[in-house]
Amino acid sequence: MAMRAAVLAIGDELVLGQVAERHAQVVSASLLDAGFTTHEHRTVPDDLEAIVAALRELARSSDLLIVTGGLGPTDDDLTRQALARALGGERLVEDDDARSALLRRFQHRGAVMPQLNLRQTLRPESARTLPNPHGTAPGLAVLLGTTRVYCLPGPPNEMEPMLRGHVLPELVASAPRGAGSEVRTMAVHTCGLAEAEVAQRLGALMDRNANPLVGTTASAALVSARVRAWGSATTDGSFESVTDEVRRRLAPFVYGDGTATLAGAVGALLLARGERLALAESCTGGLVGELLTSVAGSSRWFAGGWIVYSNELKKSQLNVSEATLAGEGAVSAACAREMAIGAAQSAETRWGVSITGIAGPDGGSAEKPVGTVWVGLVDRKAEQLAQARHFRIQGDREGVRTRAARLALQWLHMELVDAPRTRLLWEVVET
Amino acid sequence: MAMRAAVLAIGDELVLGQVAERHAQVVSASLLDAGFTTHEHRTVPDDLEAIVAALRELARSSDLLIVTGGLGPTDDDLTRQALARALGGERLVEDDDARSALLRRFQHRGAVMPQLNLRQTLRPESARTLPNPHGTAPGLAVLLGTTRVYCLPGPPNEMEPMLRGHVLPELVASAPRGAGSEVRTMAVHTCGLAEAEVAQRLGALMDRNANPLVGTTASAALVSARVRAWGSATTDGSFESVTDEVRRRLAPFVYGDGTATLAGAVGALLLARGERLALAESCTGGLVGELLTSVAGSSRWFAGGWIVYSNELKKSQLNVSEATLAGEGAVSAACAREMAIGAAQSAETRWGVSITGIAGPDGGSAEKPVGTVWVGLVDRKAEQLAQARHFRIQGDREGVRTRAARLALQWLHMELVDAPRTRLLWEVVET
Repeated sequence: MAMRAAVLAIGDELVLGQVAERHAQVVSASLLDAGFTTHEHRTVPDDLEAIVAALRELARSSDLLIVTGGLGPTDDDLTRQALARALGGERLVEDDDARSALLRRFQHRGAVMPQLNLRQTLRPESARTLPNPHGTAPGLAVLLGTTRVYCLPGPPNEMEPMLRGHVLPELVASAPRGAGSEVRTMAVHTCGLAEAEVAQRLGALMDRNANPLVGTTASAALVSARVRAWGSATTDGSFESVTDEVRRRLAPFVYGDGTATLAGAVGALLLARGERLALAESCTGGLVGELLTSVAGSSRWFAGGWIVYSNELKKSQLNVSEATLAGEGAVSAACAREMAIGAAQSAETRWGVSITGIAGPDGGSAEKPVGTVWVGLVDRKAEQLAQARHFRIQGDREGVRTRAARLALQWLHMELVDAPRTRLLWEVVET
Repeated sequence: MAMRAAVLAIGDELVLGQVAERHAQVVSASLLDAGFTTHEHRTVPDDLEAIVAALRELARSSDLLIVTGGLGPTDDDLTRQALARALGGERLVEDDDARSALLRRFQHRGAVMPQLNLRQTLRPESARTLPNPHGTAPGLAVLLGTTRVYCLPGPPNEMEPMLRGHVLPELVASAPRGAGSEVRTMAVHTCGLAEAEVAQRLGALMDRNANPLVGTTASAALVSARVRAWGSATTDGSFESVTDEVRRRLAPFVYGDGTATLAGAVGALLLARGERLALAESCTGGLVGELLTSVAGSSRWFAGGWIVYSNELKKSQLNVSEATLAGEGAVSAACAREMAIGAAQSAETRWGVSITGIAGPDGGSAEKPVGTVWVGLVDRKAEQLAQARHFRIQGDREGVRTRAARLALQWLHMELVDAPRTRLLWEVVET
């Protein structure tokens, strides 16, 4: 049987619904890869009694318990005290390593450490601290009965590196060997297909009684097919053959698997080809640039971009013609083409991508409703100087922008791998 | 004391982390307005024993329990059976109203009802069904001991209308009147202070036994102080006086409250002043533009921006001098100032903001380590043409970028409200 895990999140703001709890999903998905099946998520407020009770109950029902939040320096951060209490009333002691790390951290930025932060160096006597490279709160690791407990800080940019850098490697290194406990998973990511189209292509592979089991999850123009195998299916080749079959059926919409991102996939292709890209964004306002530059080393293949929110900037910076703006308007095939060309020419890149559209909630008309988006693409080495594609995208302002950005990147991705031109999700194909 | 609520979500895909659980936040936030304080969220798999145990435990600790999911027609939908079991082994009976509604639904779309869907008309004997206008699964309402239990279907477009259309009106209509049941909350948002500094400023206001109760949450350069009052504190003026005192102690770092965003606050100020902004982004790669244009109507105060990732574009597009790039480098006060001026002049705006820095993981040096960021700001109407501020920001690539973007916006925000110049989080103040 797989090891049983539980995730406990702590915070008034979470339980009251003021802030969305997002860690439980991230943690559970990561644990699955490490051979742990999560059987419960729980969220409780910043209340000592409630935290102690949850720690005890979840430790009784689980082999592993991951706790997030409540490690800050303020009076409502109670995880340390609650853990000491759940351990049968252990004392909190100052951890020397944590103290030195914290002092170094403040010295490094030339700041004086507020006295309050010293609390963050406390740990229950039998616990050890886990270094936090991105914040002031060290993590805690301890055995509660026979259950391994890890307490991690609440901010996602601190929690996730500690989970991946410390907790998962420890778990994988100490996992009991043998067929019973192993689970293998693989996510294959697509962009540009509806979830129902993905399900149709996968057909009987999605049978709920199968092992490996294939499921789908969809999020704003991305659909991932998730393959999960356990027991003998992890070792007899079925995991590999099902994963390969999923990839085959979803090509050419697959851009990667596992932790791959669409921007990363585009970047890797450009880097391998020794080519660069420039952007011209109107309705996405910098979102595509943000996605591309979130990839480390992107300066090697991304030159830069223009956020041309006003028509004046479209003309003065990208040479979009007055005739186009007055005739077809800023949301048009001609404007998208001219924007892409202007960006690639000014930045002296081979590739140019542009987006212009109506993200809403205002600005729509009968002819060009909210969700109307034109994407332009130019390959300055190709015969056809620039192309444009027309989308009518469902969603609110954020949804339209996110989907437009992803569809634009997927178009470029498919160009870079020489995929045949195929209709993309929400694309309006003129007949 | 406020009525205590709990939310239970059911589904393998949720607990395994394949899909994010989103209902608990929506439900809790709605319940708070109806006078119920949620004290626990829990998620369990499609497992009869686990659901029965969770129903019983949460009913014991709560006055109200909202359950989502597990009401579909397939074998892994077990909420009806679990509820009957938790009620002490009640029989499941067919509900006549639910059956007629389901038949009408299929007739209306000219379809034959699959036999499987008939299961969805079953309810425990003592329960009643709740109509579902958007799907085939009716809800269930029942008393489990003295706890009111509502079971709602999992799809958000079915759950939310039933919550708002049926459950909340019933709860509000039957809520005990008087001071006891009301809860009031307010979040006051700051940028540029460390969480420990916020706590020091708030001091005794954060006493865990106080009513109103004040807590803090931190996320990448933002810290929010959350005020919650119940009982007489909601009506005797203490809620207002504590909220005002929190604002006073955290000024001038407060940019808004409730659902306010930093970009929205900057936009509202620019709009009121009739002024516009242009951006020049290097290491943030479009992130500031994305934040600003996520605000509906931002074209009225945001002209556009330049993503100048390469030095060539910094020179050709923004007139950054060769001397600056060769002498001080792209990550310098002079470059930040020239970028801000170049953007504001080209876009003909009063305000220009620029960011140039080293987001990592590569590119750092002893003198300019990863996290070194210069922010430039120009007010073309001011005497001093451009200013620059130096930050050394903690975090991974995403963390550095997010924090840099927010600190830049907060600087502009503080300029627009004429706040005195005060050191911001991670700012290096040269002595």
